[in-house]
Amino acid sequence: MSGTPTHVDPTAAVEAAGSWLDDYLTDAGADGYVLGISGGLDSTVAAHLAVEYVGADQLTGIVMPGEPSDPEHMDDARQLCSDLGIDWYEVDISPFVSWVDDALPPDLGKKDLGNVRARARMVLWYAEANANDELVIGADNRSEFLLGYFTKYGDAATDVAPLGDLYKTEVVEIARELGVGEKFIEKTPTAGLWEGQTDVAEIGTTYDIVDAALNHLVDRDHSVGETVAATGIDEATVERLADLHRTSEHKRERPPTPGIRF
Amino acid sequence: MSGTPTHVDPTAAVEAAGSWLDDYLTDAGADGYVLGISGGLDSTVAAHLAVEYVGADQLTGIVMPGEPSDPEHMDDARQLCSDLGIDWYEVDISPFVSWVDDALPPDLGKKDLGNVRARARMVLWYAEANANDELVIGADNRSEFLLGYFTKYGDAATDVAPLGDLYKTEVVEIARELGVGEKFIEKTPTAGLWEGQTDVAEIGTTYDIVDAALNHLVDRDHSVGETVAATGIDEATVERLADLHRTSEHKRERPPTPGIRF
Repeated sequence: MSGTPTHVDPTAAVEAAGSWLDDYLTDAGADGYVLGISGGLDSTVAAHLAVEYVGADQLTGIVMPGEPSDPEHMDDARQLCSDLGIDWYEVDISPFVSWVDDALPPDLGKKDLGNVRARARMVLWYAEANANDELVIGADNRSEFLLGYFTKYGDAATDVAPLGDLYKTEVVEIARELGVGEKFIEKTPTAGLWEGQTDVAEIGTTYDIVDAALNHLVDRDHSVGETVAATGIDEATVERLADLHRTSEHKRERPPTPGIRF
Repeated sequence: MSGTPTHVDPTAAVEAAGSWLDDYLTDAGADGYVLGISGGLDSTVAAHLAVEYVGADQLTGIVMPGEPSDPEHMDDARQLCSDLGIDWYEVDISPFVSWVDDALPPDLGKKDLGNVRARARMVLWYAEANANDELVIGADNRSEFLLGYFTKYGDAATDVAPLGDLYKTEVVEIARELGVGEKFIEKTPTAGLWEGQTDVAEIGTTYDIVDAALNHLVDRDHSVGETVAATGIDEATVERLADLHRTSEHKRERPPTPGIRF
């Protein structure tokens, strides 16, 4: 496929993201970082980065099982924390989610409950961070960010986003650079919001396609037509990705105001 | 005092904010708004605006008592919902806060628990909004926003901020314009995060001073010295407000990334 994303050199990206993470903590004067460890690739990469560049003693991991989390992912998450030698603990978020569901008159659907889960995790990260003067690391990547493929004020609601400049396909490259285990690299990406959820099924295409299209639509400010011509991706897919990017703008901006004063 | 804030005409501000709120809902194609009703002035003003310009049938109120909320504030909140003729319900957030406190190894202090409360409220607003295809209205004003006087991913984590352009002293003016009851206008401002909390005690000065200083420091980009000269406010106070503004920048921006790609 032509029109692959602008190449980000994996070695340089690891060094830049890792050093930045270390400098940011020093500049903020905080005591360490906290990170939700899901057993998926992105949080694994973020954990490796933090351990290698900031230090295992300055990272606290939180593993958050709870229906419908995949038991295998959770085992991998626990094993990762143990392998990296970080302090970590586990909180089952199910009671929190059930409480929200029961507290409200409306029936919460599958997606609604998924969003509650993402926000429940954020509440726990910040409770830990606030209590111990830590900052929250986010594991979101540029592909998710540009498509709005995250829960507003949930998984992307963090203090720093070390992978935020990197497309998902590039996160895979830096995972190899960091020596992340193959089993994490080969996992089917999921936001873990409901049972059987996969990014590909929800977005409707693979990250190879997503990243190539976004690189033209966003980084190069190309039209749908230009993107189709440059990449050979079918027009309906490019249209849909452009739409996801456009309609998710509110998730990337602070809440709008009427603009009375300016 | 000289150097009072640039005047925003209350009549024009009400009209602009109200029409904007109505247009925003239409443009978003959502079914209505949800708003947390605290019994304080800001959410009361936001509720009045929404009812007058969008319609009582398109606003759902959530009253959220729970230690340490002031029972009088809660009664005023219930009465307001009833007087405005909106659909509303009540959720005691105490179990949610206790659950978070118990779920984590660290001891949560007074401020930490206050932040959990603010985030618990946000989780409920969004669960309601997601289930019923509504947007979340925030009640934050410009004074709080510029000082970072809010919980990150808590009370300011909303879909729209109709009062976000207005300093607190201006919110008081538009409250009068909207016919909001004097008892709300005369209340001591509080974020409701712990018992006896008041904005003035936490910020260390009154909103008259805050707003006059911010108007110079931010709107006119004046130095601390220029602000002191123009307003007659003592230098230590201006320094402190300038500091609060500067150090809270991370609460107004999206999570920073290393800047690898650009």
